[in-house]
Formats: sequence, C-alpha cells, structure tokens
Amino acid sequence: MTTQPPAGYAYGSTPPSPVSRDELAKLEATVLFTADDVQDLRMAGDVLEDQVEDILDVWYGFVASHPHLVAYFATPDGRVLDDYLARVRQRFGQWIMDTCHRPHDEEWLSYAHEIGLRHTQDKKNQTDQAASVRHIPLRYMVAFIYPITATIRPFLANKGHDEGTVERMYQAWFKSVTLQTALWLQPYAADTW
Amino acid sequence: MTTQPPAGYAYGSTPPSPVSRDELAKLEATVLFTADDVQDLRMAGDVLEDQVEDILDVWYGFVASHPHLVAYFATPDGRVLDDYLARVRQRFGQWIMDTCHRPHDEEWLSYAHEIGLRHTQDKKNQTDQAASVRHIPLRYMVAFIYPITATIRPFLANKGHDEGTVERMYQAWFKSVTLQTALWLQPYAADTW
Repeated sequence: MTTQPPAGYAYGSTPPSPVSRDELAKLEATVLFTADDVQDLRMAGDVLEDQVEDILDVWYGFVASHPHLVAYFATPDGRVLDDYLARVRQRFGQWIMDTCHRPHDEEWLSYAHEIGLRHTQDKKNQTDQAASVRHIPLRYMVAFIYPITATIRPFLANKGHDEGTVERMYQAWFKSVTLQTALWLQPYAADTW
Repeated sequence: MTTQPPAGYAYGSTPPSPVSRDELAKLEATVLFTADDVQDLRMAGDVLEDQVEDILDVWYGFVASHPHLVAYFATPDGRVLDDYLARVRQRFGQWIMDTCHRPHDEEWLSYAHEIGLRHTQDKKNQTDQAASVRHIPLRYMVAFIYPITATIRPFLANKGHDEGTVERMYQAWFKSVTLQTALWLQPYAADTW
C-alpha cells in the first residue's frame, strides 16, 4: 500500500448520508454485527494489510476474465480503460483497510453513501473523468457479495491463526460486506430502500 | 414437511420473468455458480430435508426477537399477524427445498420474480390477505443474505459429512442465496437493476 491517499478518495469530506444512525443500527442487528465483529475486523486488517495487492490481483483477475464485468471499466463500445481500472484499484485497496479499521460513525455512513453514488448514474465515472458506461446495475452490486466474501478467506488464513479465529474474521468480513452493500444500494432505489 | 403444497405456493403457474436467461447466466458467473454447485445443493437438500422445521425455528426466532423485523409480519400499528406468519412459514420451508432441488430454468426464474414481487408494494400481503405493512424495504432483503446463509451451516454439518463436503454445500447455498436475492430485487428497482 502506498502511503499517499488514493486519487479521488474523499473519506471525511462527503455530505451527510440520507441513512440515519437508527437505520444503520437496525441493519447491523439484521446482519448480527456486534462489538466482537469490530475486534475481529481489526485483527483482519492486521492480517490483510500486507496482502492487499495480492487480494486486488485476485479480484481484478476475476473481473478481467469476465467480459460482462470488465465492461463496467470500458467505454460503451468496449475499449477497456486502463487508467480508470488503476485509479479504482487504489481506492478498492483503501476500502479493504477502511472495512477493517473505520468505526461505523457518521463519516463512515457518509462515505458508504458516496461509494454507492459512484456506482450509479449520479456519479459513476465523475471522480476519474472516465469515458465508461453510465452505471453498474444493482444486480451486480448484490452478486459481488459472493466473490468479495469468499475470496478473502484464504488471505485471512495466511498468517497462522487457528481455524476458529480465521472463521471469526471471515464472518465479520461477510457481515460487513453485506451491510455495506445494503447501504450502497440506497441511491439505486431511494423510494423502496 | 407436509406433503400438501403450501397455501399460496404458485410454482409453475406464474408469468414469465422480465429477467432473461442470458442475464441469469451472467449473474451465475458473477457468483461463481457452476454445475458442481447444482450437485452440492442437491446433497444439501437431502441433508436439510428432515431439518426444515428446525431451520425455520431458528429463522423465525431471529425475526421474532427483533421488533424492527417482526414489524413486517404485523399491522402498521404493530399487531403481529400469526396466521400470516404461519402461512409464510410453510412457503419458506418449501423455498429451502426448492433452493436445493429446482433447476435454474424459466419456471425457476419466473417464481424468483414472483417471490420478489411478494415483498414489494406490488404484491406483499395479497397472497395471504394479510393486513400488514405495504412492503419490505430493499435494504433488509440484502441484509438477510447474512443470517439466511450463516445459520444454515450447522444444519449442513448435522449428518456426518466431512468438513470439506459441508463447506462445499455451504458455499453452494451462499451462492444461491446471493443470486436469488439479486433476482428478487428486480421489481424493487426495475430502472437501475
């Protein structure tokens, strides 16, 4: 990881989320997210910190191997935008660390909303001045819960923790990815969210 | 499980889904769902078949212990509708078996769409003539991926399969729940889906 903040990373300077703290608390309860998960995610952050580039290699390899996914990093006529991929990659790495270390406060809620917006017609491409397609369909936001969760487990097991500890970190990660995906979808469907 | 089909269960007699087979195939690829998962889900079906009521006890216990969740089985002023809970419970049990055994064909796609509709303002409460609130918010549809996935694992391990086999069944279940949730959200956000 670079020590420079990634280009376009705006944590701490985005507007308040329309999602309330009470709505967040109820979502946390629904995914069974507790103070233990906060601790387990911190441990996961220590485990993952020097593996971030390897994780991103797996995720980018997955996207690159599926034309219907790499299309979201391409122009409408299919030219892949390498600079866009590279810029998003830096923020994706930062997101791994933020998922593990950031407290679930107003700033976190605000930036989760910003991440959602950046996948919709409202803000996709803007941050990176990318000439890509206008949004990422909601269905892929949900579907990504699976690969983003399942692929993290081997990395959590790479530092010699016992199986029970790895499993706890993995479950905390799964809860957080599910919770964040729910938050990211607010701008996709404000009326039914 | 009763041998009678559950009240309101309309598998095989619902209109075609707006989701195409091609869109389904791309979603399956995104959650890494393969022919191996079909086999692992079948095995899971055999494992879970005589545990369905116990699984439903866990899920209903979870909902019942959270006022913000049981509200979706209650009137707008908070009176819990026991008959509605009981009728949905039967179909929920059937859904476990369908998840394990039904092929991903046009009928399956159609009924997945029907399930989605029955959580939205379009069709919630209709099947059961329930006097409940008008929809289940999209965010809880996503959040439920976690409890519906995580709680199934002990049941998959109850029949003496080795750890690797249990894990394969569990991952197939996780993929299917994620995939189906993506499908269920189409009527929530047809424009951005």
